[in-house]
Amino acid sequence: MNMKDTISIGHGGGGRLARDLIKNLFLKHLNNPKLAPLGDSAVFELNGSTIALTTDSFVVKPIFFPGGDIGKLAVCGTVNDLSVVGARPLYLSCGIIIEEGFSLKDLEAITLSIKESADKAGVEVITGDTKVIEKATGGNIYINTAGIGIIENSIALGIDKINIGDKIILSGTIGEHGIAVISKREGFDFESTIESDCASLNEITQKALKAGCIKFMRDPTRGGLAAVLNEIAEDGSLDIKIDEDAIPVRDDVKGICSMLGLDPFYIANEGKVVIVAAKGDAENILRALHNDPLGQNASIIGEITGKGEHGVYLKTSYGGTRILDMPVDDPLPRIC
Amino acid sequence: MNMKDTISIGHGGGGRLARDLIKNLFLKHLNNPKLAPLGDSAVFELNGSTIALTTDSFVVKPIFFPGGDIGKLAVCGTVNDLSVVGARPLYLSCGIIIEEGFSLKDLEAITLSIKESADKAGVEVITGDTKVIEKATGGNIYINTAGIGIIENSIALGIDKINIGDKIILSGTIGEHGIAVISKREGFDFESTIESDCASLNEITQKALKAGCIKFMRDPTRGGLAAVLNEIAEDGSLDIKIDEDAIPVRDDVKGICSMLGLDPFYIANEGKVVIVAAKGDAENILRALHNDPLGQNASIIGEITGKGEHGVYLKTSYGGTRILDMPVDDPLPRIC
Repeated sequence: MNMKDTISIGHGGGGRLARDLIKNLFLKHLNNPKLAPLGDSAVFELNGSTIALTTDSFVVKPIFFPGGDIGKLAVCGTVNDLSVVGARPLYLSCGIIIEEGFSLKDLEAITLSIKESADKAGVEVITGDTKVIEKATGGNIYINTAGIGIIENSIALGIDKINIGDKIILSGTIGEHGIAVISKREGFDFESTIESDCASLNEITQKALKAGCIKFMRDPTRGGLAAVLNEIAEDGSLDIKIDEDAIPVRDDVKGICSMLGLDPFYIANEGKVVIVAAKGDAENILRALHNDPLGQNASIIGEITGKGEHGVYLKTSYGGTRILDMPVDDPLPRIC
Repeated sequence: MNMKDTISIGHGGGGRLARDLIKNLFLKHLNNPKLAPLGDSAVFELNGSTIALTTDSFVVKPIFFPGGDIGKLAVCGTVNDLSVVGARPLYLSCGIIIEEGFSLKDLEAITLSIKESADKAGVEVITGDTKVIEKATGGNIYINTAGIGIIENSIALGIDKINIGDKIILSGTIGEHGIAVISKREGFDFESTIESDCASLNEITQKALKAGCIKFMRDPTRGGLAAVLNEIAEDGSLDIKIDEDAIPVRDDVKGICSMLGLDPFYIANEGKVVIVAAKGDAENILRALHNDPLGQNASIIGEITGKGEHGVYLKTSYGGTRILDMPVDDPLPRIC
């Protein structure tokens, strides 16, 4: 990373540029044993309790989109970052930066959405902050939520727990969130309305944890499924084989992606989880997912095949095999 | 509050407009028993531990100013919000929103400043997030820090603990932070360089708590000393009498305020604390403050004189008495 350079939109994506920025700047200088390695939540002990802390800022544009809004996203996103480390989310903070000229009516709608989403996830917003910046377009709002949760039953997930033979489970169809936001932003008028999958994953992840031995979980947001699989492969020095036909993608999402030249594997989701499970427990966990409203389309999509080459290999629908690369930047900026 | 209205710069200040927004929108809709009442930290019990959680976003302009930068501010501000509820700060999260085109060199300088300030305060940044927004001026960065701390020794501060006769202590001179930022922003070339007082208050507040019975603490940031005193008066239905001559203000700050038509009582500080102490313990606490590098100019500035009228009365240097009002909006926007 050349320090003469400047920040580009890709530095905020879910791909290579963002990972390099985090590794070469933030992790380099802020390094400490607890620092959450590249995403999700940090975990620490406090007086005998295991606590998870996470933070996420939301800059999605437009702020209201089919299936959600920035307030719902801010709650679900942080609840999900806690959920995927096995924590039961408890409390959220909410820091709002608003542009001068922003509509109070919209701010109220967003606040109500935060409340509704928090109630649904069983968490409480207990502290907040508001800052106002000068007017630009008048329509910008940025929301940061930090979240705290408790990890019970000695759950300890980590990429280092993953073994050859472990199965990879995806909790449902991919691509809806990104397509819903981009459709609204660009004013596309598709026949079928695709809604964001934005949802809190705390219940479904707790059900999955009870159903069998889970090694690792991550929600495929920025960078999509491809980024999460590559993170697992890279950080764990693992080889992953994925079966394209096993990955659930809605036909309308496929169609729109094909029209726009996008690959659903790289599109952000906000209500899905990738689970790496012990081989013998995968079917049991899959059944638990199918019994949850958010897991109807859950599928075992692949497995850990080796250690050392650390790549993600996709068995395509046509019978061939191709490498599923880590995205470099983001195909869709300001998606969350 | 008329919902047809839009957000103004004053809604992000430390005065009446901001309080109304919080009360009529955020507290109204998000209401729950733990929600931090108008500032500072929320406090909750978890498995027998008393934990404080707080959040603050920083939008200061310019990002580098005499005595500090946005990174130092982001650490100190959140450490201070934990400190004033009596918590020992432990961990911070850090969510950064950066404008496309922002200098990587500046981002590195800010990251190093975060690290240095965190080390100095004895806290660790353990989780983070980065988002990038489209280019406007290319120079904007917004930092949110949430913080978690632990409250020990059964400390339980609150405005409801305050009694008639309690003394009000100010830990040092007021006005430097606001004047330092505005001088740099507007390119004023004052003879004496005034530096921001930006500092972490965790050590001095712990020393004060050990020295005697403290009822309540708050750091006078946005809205300045006047806002904090009015918040205490209003939220506690208390009458406060302050002695203008007892309030430490540097001569150069007084001079610049007078030139710019500003009142130092309303200017933001980032390294000061207002303490309400039991009458009999005030002198002891004052001595403890004087023994800390940040408390050299600490002073007993007034006392609680009654209940019911809930106003702040200032005995002026000229012998008269005037009401010290709650600010309506902020004389200096984007100061923190």
